[in-house]
Amino acid sequence: MGLVLGIDPGSHFTGYGLVREVDGVLRCIAFGVIEGNKKDSMPKRLLDIGLGLQEIFQQHKPDAVSIEKMFFAKNADSATKLGQARGVCLYESARFGCPIFEYAPTEIKASLVGHGRAEKEQVQFIVQALLGLPAMARFDMSDALALAIHHVRIATTRKRMKDLEVLT
Amino acid sequence: MGLVLGIDPGSHFTGYGLVREVDGVLRCIAFGVIEGNKKDSMPKRLLDIGLGLQEIFQQHKPDAVSIEKMFFAKNADSATKLGQARGVCLYESARFGCPIFEYAPTEIKASLVGHGRAEKEQVQFIVQALLGLPAMARFDMSDALALAIHHVRIATTRKRMKDLEVLT
Repeated sequence: MGLVLGIDPGSHFTGYGLVREVDGVLRCIAFGVIEGNKKDSMPKRLLDIGLGLQEIFQQHKPDAVSIEKMFFAKNADSATKLGQARGVCLYESARFGCPIFEYAPTEIKASLVGHGRAEKEQVQFIVQALLGLPAMARFDMSDALALAIHHVRIATTRKRMKDLEVLT
Repeated sequence: MGLVLGIDPGSHFTGYGLVREVDGVLRCIAFGVIEGNKKDSMPKRLLDIGLGLQEIFQQHKPDAVSIEKMFFAKNADSATKLGQARGVCLYESARFGCPIFEYAPTEIKASLVGHGRAEKEQVQFIVQALLGLPAMARFDMSDALALAIHHVRIATTRKRMKDLEVLT
């Protein structure tokens, strides 16, 4: 199992979190938020997101990206804005040849908190507890870390099941 | 006045068209479509769009990009898909330091055909006539060329008005 980069795209704030499992324990390698200045044009903000992700890819060389499945946004306008930020995230991941895994928000919440309609505060609380982190400034960060944790777990479970198949 | 690249983004077909004005006459330098394979994953398709645009930017070095303003799509799902493709187009334009100009579809149609609710066939007919081009395979191409033509006209008019101001 390698290093997983969780991404929570947004046209103002794009959260990211890097998680790996070491000897059965989840470790947070880095997390943060790429902030787009509201005063900037949309192309400039998308440029900041893409260049920010490039830096993360170059520095940490993640083995997989975990991102939320497209969901039905409140309206077409916010869906387009979110889509633009998401498009840049998928594009930069593909440019780095990083495999991309998509999970529904309900799946992430059910996996971490125990039910699919958990609040963001609950997700953040569990993420902090699992990774031994202090309070986080933004939900974009904890959501990104939750995506990374979920994929680490899925991939680890798959690997164990495969190992068992080889043994039997 | 320089070379203008019109882009009509789409997750399946992204049309592009390069237009400049030479001695008061519009010239089409190149046009085409970047095709995403429907069988490919969305990240792979976005990668194809971005890399295709990179080639166009490197080969033609346009001075400006003309793209449709975000409009309210039929539903949030198609808005997200269109947004992703549009995001990659804006991002690559910004990466090449190319200024981006956005126009509403109604403005383009009114400028070319004479009324804002013209059909795509009418736009294509006028584009072919203005640029002296044969029949085009797809509306993505004529829509991209229409965007480029409109920006060339706007920029040329602005430049002439500025020159007149200098003279008076």
